[in-house]
Amino acid sequence: MSSEKPILHSYFRSSCSWRVRTCLNWKGIDYEYCPVDLLEGAQKKEEYSEINPYKVVPTLKIDGNVLSQSIAILEYLEETRPEKPLLPKDPYKRALVRSLVQAIAGDIQPLHYIRTLQYIESTGGNKNEWVIYCITRGFEVEKQLAKTSGKYCVGDEVTLADLCLLPQVYDSKRFGIDMTKFPLIQRIANDLSELDAFKKAHPQNQIDCPAEERN
Amino acid sequence: MSSEKPILHSYFRSSCSWRVRTCLNWKGIDYEYCPVDLLEGAQKKEEYSEINPYKVVPTLKIDGNVLSQSIAILEYLEETRPEKPLLPKDPYKRALVRSLVQAIAGDIQPLHYIRTLQYIESTGGNKNEWVIYCITRGFEVEKQLAKTSGKYCVGDEVTLADLCLLPQVYDSKRFGIDMTKFPLIQRIANDLSELDAFKKAHPQNQIDCPAEERN
Repeated sequence: MSSEKPILHSYFRSSCSWRVRTCLNWKGIDYEYCPVDLLEGAQKKEEYSEINPYKVVPTLKIDGNVLSQSIAILEYLEETRPEKPLLPKDPYKRALVRSLVQAIAGDIQPLHYIRTLQYIESTGGNKNEWVIYCITRGFEVEKQLAKTSGKYCVGDEVTLADLCLLPQVYDSKRFGIDMTKFPLIQRIANDLSELDAFKKAHPQNQIDCPAEERN
Repeated sequence: MSSEKPILHSYFRSSCSWRVRTCLNWKGIDYEYCPVDLLEGAQKKEEYSEINPYKVVPTLKIDGNVLSQSIAILEYLEETRPEKPLLPKDPYKRALVRSLVQAIAGDIQPLHYIRTLQYIESTGGNKNEWVIYCITRGFEVEKQLAKTSGKYCVGDEVTLADLCLLPQVYDSKRFGIDMTKFPLIQRIANDLSELDAFKKAHPQNQIDCPAEERN
């Protein structure tokens, strides 16, 4: 393994980047933050698309490797840095965690990517209505959490599911979703937002967050 | 572990179900097929939503557990039935596989779920145009495959990435995508479609495939 400091290519508001920032913080992995300005289209420039052909954030350079796709990165960090685990040991509980991860990272978040919203707007659709519909539907995770949660999404330990939940709740609030319909999601998100690894990973605490967006 | 035969709740044309069918076949796990007719809305009925709160297929009952979300199910099967592995041993190669899995299962397939298309149609958008846009964009996996592929998506062994690729290519053809733009994807899909586990998992070979859709 390379001893060089890992480099995270990230955008402050990207929820996929946020998941990875939280994981790095949780596991105590020191890293260099390299901003990718999505609004300026930096992700489409050749320099970046060379390392990330999907032209999305995050990309993590670590151990001499270049990794893309947040969930793949989280699994890699869990396998190579098993201290402060983010997956339970039991295969069924791991499946419960990963099911929640996919329900958020696969079934909700891609539906409100900026390019999806741009398309809906270009056809005369109402992007806010769409986002409210797809997040509200996606938050049927509330029913699953009623079966799996303890203090956090699955039991009483922080897992990869929690790393996905908090950024999704943040996005939902930005879109004006009424979170009182999802008391369990909201309660867990509140508890997570008190933890140092999550606080430090918050968009407002990144170097590329504009001054006017900070509290 | 329970010795009862696993039950897969599946819809023949669902690409998420197809991924799991291929995995079960690949690992030689005998299972009972339980059709869920998505067109009739069987997934929304209480009996089904009790076991799958997301109201989607597939659901796998195995080892006395109820599992949802195809990617979580694949990881569970890999962890509990490591014979005929579908993930490499090396953590970096595993990350390459999982990155492709997410690029397909997260960044392409959810964008053309039936409910997304219904919304786009309801706002006067052209759903075909949208699907062509999002699959064509998503198939930038071609560039990643140029770096990772051998005979299959990552090297010369079948992995979870291949289980996701073939159903996506099938969907793409249904939507009339010009696959000549993606020669590597098409070549790998052709090779995969010759393998027994993939053939047996094909929509046309499921008991709920209507006669008129069979070749």
